[in-house]
Amino acid sequence: MRSPILDYLDGIIAETAHVDSGALADYIPELAAADPDRVAVALCTVNGTVYASGDSEHLFSIQSMSKPFAYALAIEDRGLGDVLERIGVEPSGEAFNELSLDPETGRPRNPMINAGAIAAHALVRGGGSEAVDRVLALFSELAQRPVGIDESLAASELATGDRNLGLAYLLHASDRLAQDPGTAVRGYVRQCSASVTVHDLALMAATLANGGVQPNTGARLFSRRTTRHLLSVMTSCGMYDAAGDWLTGIGIPAKSGVAGGIIGVLPGQVGLAVFSPRLDPHGNSARGVEMMRRLSEDLGLHLMEAGRPARSSLRETHTTTVEGRTATVYVLQGDLVLSSVESLVREIIERPPATDVVVFDMSRVDEVLPVARRTSAETATKLVDNGYRIILVDPEQTLHGFRDSRGRDVERWSSARLAKSQR
Amino acid sequence: MRSPILDYLDGIIAETAHVDSGALADYIPELAAADPDRVAVALCTVNGTVYASGDSEHLFSIQSMSKPFAYALAIEDRGLGDVLERIGVEPSGEAFNELSLDPETGRPRNPMINAGAIAAHALVRGGGSEAVDRVLALFSELAQRPVGIDESLAASELATGDRNLGLAYLLHASDRLAQDPGTAVRGYVRQCSASVTVHDLALMAATLANGGVQPNTGARLFSRRTTRHLLSVMTSCGMYDAAGDWLTGIGIPAKSGVAGGIIGVLPGQVGLAVFSPRLDPHGNSARGVEMMRRLSEDLGLHLMEAGRPARSSLRETHTTTVEGRTATVYVLQGDLVLSSVESLVREIIERPPATDVVVFDMSRVDEVLPVARRTSAETATKLVDNGYRIILVDPEQTLHGFRDSRGRDVERWSSARLAKSQR
Amino acid sequence: MRSPILDYLDGIIAETAHVDSGALADYIPELAAADPDRVAVALCTVNGTVYASGDSEHLFSIQSMSKPFAYALAIEDRGLGDVLERIGVEPSGEAFNELSLDPETGRPRNPMINAGAIAAHALVRGGGSEAVDRVLALFSELAQRPVGIDESLAASELATGDRNLGLAYLLHASDRLAQDPGTAVRGYVRQCSASVTVHDLALMAATLANGGVQPNTGARLFSRRTTRHLLSVMTSCGMYDAAGDWLTGIGIPAKSGVAGGIIGVLPGQVGLAVFSPRLDPHGNSARGVEMMRRLSEDLGLHLMEAGRPARSSLRETHTTTVEGRTATVYVLQGDLVLSSVESLVREIIERPPATDVVVFDMSRVDEVLPVARRTSAETATKLVDNGYRIILVDPEQTLHGFRDSRGRDVERWSSARLAKSQR
Amino acid sequence: MRSPILDYLDGIIAETAHVDSGALADYIPELAAADPDRVAVALCTVNGTVYASGDSEHLFSIQSMSKPFAYALAIEDRGLGDVLERIGVEPSGEAFNELSLDPETGRPRNPMINAGAIAAHALVRGGGSEAVDRVLALFSELAQRPVGIDESLAASELATGDRNLGLAYLLHASDRLAQDPGTAVRGYVRQCSASVTVHDLALMAATLANGGVQPNTGARLFSRRTTRHLLSVMTSCGMYDAAGDWLTGIGIPAKSGVAGGIIGVLPGQVGLAVFSPRLDPHGNSARGVEMMRRLSEDLGLHLMEAGRPARSSLRETHTTTVEGRTATVYVLQGDLVLSSVESLVREIIERPPATDVVVFDMSRVDEVLPVARRTSAETATKLVDNGYRIILVDPEQTLHGFRDSRGRDVERWSSARLAKSQR
Repeated sequence: MRSPILDYLDGIIAETAHVDSGALADYIPELAAADPDRVAVALCTVNGTVYASGDSEHLFSIQSMSKPFAYALAIEDRGLGDVLERIGVEPSGEAFNELSLDPETGRPRNPMINAGAIAAHALVRGGGSEAVDRVLALFSELAQRPVGIDESLAASELATGDRNLGLAYLLHASDRLAQDPGTAVRGYVRQCSASVTVHDLALMAATLANGGVQPNTGARLFSRRTTRHLLSVMTSCGMYDAAGDWLTGIGIPAKSGVAGGIIGVLPGQVGLAVFSPRLDPHGNSARGVEMMRRLSEDLGLHLMEAGRPARSSLRETHTTTVEGRTATVYVLQGDLVLSSVESLVREIIERPPATDVVVFDMSRVDEVLPVARRTSAETATKLVDNGYRIILVDPEQTLHGFRDSRGRDVERWSSARLAKSQR
Repeated sequence: MRSPILDYLDGIIAETAHVDSGALADYIPELAAADPDRVAVALCTVNGTVYASGDSEHLFSIQSMSKPFAYALAIEDRGLGDVLERIGVEPSGEAFNELSLDPETGRPRNPMINAGAIAAHALVRGGGSEAVDRVLALFSELAQRPVGIDESLAASELATGDRNLGLAYLLHASDRLAQDPGTAVRGYVRQCSASVTVHDLALMAATLANGGVQPNTGARLFSRRTTRHLLSVMTSCGMYDAAGDWLTGIGIPAKSGVAGGIIGVLPGQVGLAVFSPRLDPHGNSARGVEMMRRLSEDLGLHLMEAGRPARSSLRETHTTTVEGRTATVYVLQGDLVLSSVESLVREIIERPPATDVVVFDMSRVDEVLPVARRTSAETATKLVDNGYRIILVDPEQTLHGFRDSRGRDVERWSSARLAKSQR
Repeated sequence: MRSPILDYLDGIIAETAHVDSGALADYIPELAAADPDRVAVALCTVNGTVYASGDSEHLFSIQSMSKPFAYALAIEDRGLGDVLERIGVEPSGEAFNELSLDPETGRPRNPMINAGAIAAHALVRGGGSEAVDRVLALFSELAQRPVGIDESLAASELATGDRNLGLAYLLHASDRLAQDPGTAVRGYVRQCSASVTVHDLALMAATLANGGVQPNTGARLFSRRTTRHLLSVMTSCGMYDAAGDWLTGIGIPAKSGVAGGIIGVLPGQVGLAVFSPRLDPHGNSARGVEMMRRLSEDLGLHLMEAGRPARSSLRETHTTTVEGRTATVYVLQGDLVLSSVESLVREIIERPPATDVVVFDMSRVDEVLPVARRTSAETATKLVDNGYRIILVDPEQTLHGFRDSRGRDVERWSSARLAKSQR
Repeated sequence: MRSPILDYLDGIIAETAHVDSGALADYIPELAAADPDRVAVALCTVNGTVYASGDSEHLFSIQSMSKPFAYALAIEDRGLGDVLERIGVEPSGEAFNELSLDPETGRPRNPMINAGAIAAHALVRGGGSEAVDRVLALFSELAQRPVGIDESLAASELATGDRNLGLAYLLHASDRLAQDPGTAVRGYVRQCSASVTVHDLALMAATLANGGVQPNTGARLFSRRTTRHLLSVMTSCGMYDAAGDWLTGIGIPAKSGVAGGIIGVLPGQVGLAVFSPRLDPHGNSARGVEMMRRLSEDLGLHLMEAGRPARSSLRETHTTTVEGRTATVYVLQGDLVLSSVESLVREIIERPPATDVVVFDMSRVDEVLPVARRTSAETATKLVDNGYRIILVDPEQTLHGFRDSRGRDVERWSSARLAKSQR
């Protein structure tokens, strides 16, 4: 049987066939010679399953989509503070070919424009060919297959790379480049010439969606904080001068490449990748943008979609008999986050239990966030201080090691003991 | 008993007492005369409960925090298309006192800078004092109490309002102002002079967090789409020229006002409001920013926090006997969104059930998003087409009206019937 | 007999008939209704004779050509220092419709753009209608006929004057406007609506060419220093964003108006005025620019035309007999400026006269500039100190009151006495 | 005897001794090690005499003062059109270290900023070391002594020349650089490292004042048109972001260098050079600017100084007897330019001679400009056509070859014949 998710992706391709405007990048023969009608889309869940449709095994160059990953690697290598000294995080409000160096400091506005991306590449540890090797190794680990370089493309890019060299020399002159300009540009061009498929890219994006952990291997490639920082930067700076349009309309942290690819990331949910070589005037894949728009709409991926208001953690309250005494049972459910645990706490504060014994049944609870743990501990403390006896039924150990805020253990019962007691 | 959430907010105030830098806005006597040591914080959940600490009933002027709400009202009144013709959505990368009119079209860059906010006010239906009344009525409905205007402040602002008048005349000259400039500025200044508390503001922000529905009354004040659009604009344009810093560091759609207030919104979770009159060089409340930073950090509110990877919807699989025949039971759980239902679909596609009868037990399912419904329907179709008999156990009617993608009804059993059958 | 200068101007009109591109200003009906084929040219020498050809008595609105004169009046009224505090002198490098306010100070870049011109108008003493009356009186004195206002045009401009009002309010907000914004714009619009002919404009420009003195009346309307300052500003800021093109190609301080006029000034030589209503994309009269180009080329008016290297002041040296003793006679000629007197001084220093008696024959000398007078006095001193007897023959009193640098009188002879003595 | 002009220059140095603010350029050790108290001033007339005071034989690097000369050489080599395609002529309104590339075309704004100067150097014929040799040969011919390169300075500049390399690569990427970036920058740095004195610089500037002809040798180094173009560009772009201040206040086409030199040119009059190493915040020599201000003021060098209104060419009119008939004699004088010949022509047109015979006595005339020759020819034609007999007395042949506008010769008499005839 074919997965209906694949059917859905087939539909995305079919329904965007009419978007055939735009033109191939033509500054080097390799890009100008691309088949303009190639098209592919892929989606990867945070558990690492990839769904792909169209020319999903077609190799093309990663180009600017390499920028987020190399930037994250530089942050891991050098620390965020050092990186921020050399590269800003503000949207440039400018087209992709702008210099976007701060006129006073010479610092590139952000790492998603060329100047910032060259500066980021130059911060990757090792430098020179070792840095390139490390970037490629990262791509390979993200994509879970050996990612190589399109050498003839890299040679072509280098031969026409005066603009990047110009930026690199200006960066070096302002002390924003950690490397010799020639080496930095050579390395950066090779980074951009890595050959990937939408399958690879979806997996790479899914690692970002997964908080920095490669979903297939479970290896943490970027810290949670680095990932969060990177996604923020992609949100405001990833789509050049159309940042506001993209954020309001599509609402997914994203990055496009001049060969026609776009990646998108919905934190906690999915990584996306699309490919179609014809570019719109902003330099983004014209059909790719349309595919992304539909994916965002259909799958409810817009960052600002409130989603369902978080459900209350309090599923129900009832009284029962525990060891011969009447007890109040609070049945909790779902994830305990601030906005869900709050209703429970409020219920208890406003209407203190009428019985001396209070049971918290956590058997339907999935996860407990730190702030909820803290708030719960404080609530428990208040109850104990007021003379209540608290019984915790927590078969899945979601509150493993839980004590009240004065450090007092709470009584723990199994579900079976509770059931037996009630009889 | 006092709520531990209140204790937490008390802590936020206590721990930021050292942030006493910055200066009062001083362009009019009313603002310069503010008590610089006032401080307050409030938090409102999407179900409408407000927690507030500090000078939470202290009235101050809403100022620029009125911009998002009036902008949303203008969109509801005129439609998004008409509004976008007059006001852009791109970050200006400029300080709060910049003109930020597009040099070619005269269109203000976004509705969070003064020029755009005046243009937005002028689009509120009714015009003149009717528009002001409607804005005030909106504030009152959002805050669930009658919100009034600080008339002496409004008079003072008008008397020194040359800059706004200048902007309004320029807008009118470029056909971006739907009203006479004098009327527009008078109305806008009155809008900014509304007196509010952090309690009010948290409720107002919570309505945005709640997708546009006032959580206490359940009244829909803004459409889901308008709310999503507004939050996107606040994300990239709400904090002036520090947009990138704010997004990477704090990561909450927000808006500040010159009287010292800041509101923040985490979609689906909470509305926040802080107040402290001393301003940093960006024109944002210095201590307010610090309070927001702690709230974001402590409560895990950063937009890009992946949160827990979405849990699989498939809790467990087991076989049982149904009406004498062996059946495969899929026990589902939580919310069915794309990233959670995908694992179920994949399981079924990759390992088709070995029994003819298939039971889907939805009794632990909370909600089903459209894309999951569609994917599920297609999966069901494939199973029926392959000769399977499908039984749906859905006591809470989460899949109310569910049919397969060919329109065929599926068999529905109660939990009791399933239990009985298994025996 | 017709003056050949008029024939020349007829030729300028005939030879530019092919320049019929460009479009009428159309933001108000009065300008859009102009006859696009009207054309005129006028030239006025520094002694006040006007030569005009074409529709030279056709009245049209002075528009931005009023700016230099009102700016000069403001400087005379307030002093240059006060004016510079409110209005800069730097080229804006921007199109005529740019705001061109300094982003940090709100100061308009220069008085030739609208913002600066409004600020200049508001500095004219008297304010309100008195200021307008004074500007009109100035125009009338410059043109030597009563200049009036086209009231229907003024009304139309006011009705569409939102942009100017916007600028005026912004200026007022930055403390750069010495007047209430409404009054300033009303006055400025009236100033721009004065009706003039190319005949008037050539006379007005000739006053600037003549160092600020109206050539017909001899009345000093602007100080020498104000005039020099104004012409400098016209040189770099008069032609909007084509300043560099204009300066390299045409090289005359100039100012254009949106009704189709352009004035030009060659210091010490002529005032020029041309008229043709069709505007090029810079907002300057298309045919007017071409007429100016030919005038500059034909008449050798380019500021940077070195002209003939200044001739030596020393026409000849010979010896003669004076009162029985051999004397060296230096026959001087032309204007004594630094570069001309230098060769005389050098001759004397390098080859001190071989005779005790030295005669300076000034009968062919036209004028003596201060630096030449000083240098001559010092030379005379050196000669006297070295024992020479100096005789000055200066029938036209060009060195009236001349003494050596120690204050000693020099011997003065008439030409006749010299002639008689030589015999 | 010492020349009083030297005394005057000594005074300039003495009177600016109090200007000791500013700081040495310090980006390379060679400049930082300069003696800050060195000071020199030189003045060269258009006939090539140099007056210099202070450390006038002290060698320092020419730096940016090389830009005008190399630009002029590029124009001579390539033609103005080709050069304008690569380098604009608009003031940048920006500081000396700005990129000032047109954001749309990548063309440098003007040749006085680094990007434009590198592009200009790269246009010098020969390229590579041949271009440098040609620039040096030009400097040597201008200064009339062999000008060499400070090799250790050049090496230092190259070692820190990343910014220039960056600009060169950007120019090359936009097709604005006629040479390999490395070669262009190496050549440009060597051009800037030429060692000169104020004596040299004054002579170099005097060649520009003299319309492109080296005054000592009479060799034409730049065409009249190139010189005029260059001086226009220096007027608006030579002093970086203080262009308007400089033009209004000092009013001389000029260029400064980072080693502390400034050159100035008054067309037709003098070349100036000053030197003092401390720089003001604009990057110009602080004391040098003050010296230039005094020179401009004292010597009446401001471009916009109207000078004396041009005198009438008509010295006197009288009647005499010529060959027994009464004749009208017009005695002309000085230079015949438009503004001077106009009064003569007007006199004749308005009051046609009452006698049949008309004598033009040119013996006091110095020079006749083309437009005056043409106007005179047309006037003569009108007189002849009206039956007058015209006699030209032109002992110095200022109207050599003069005919009327129909090609008819006019009668020519010697002064002696006229004198004899009158008796």
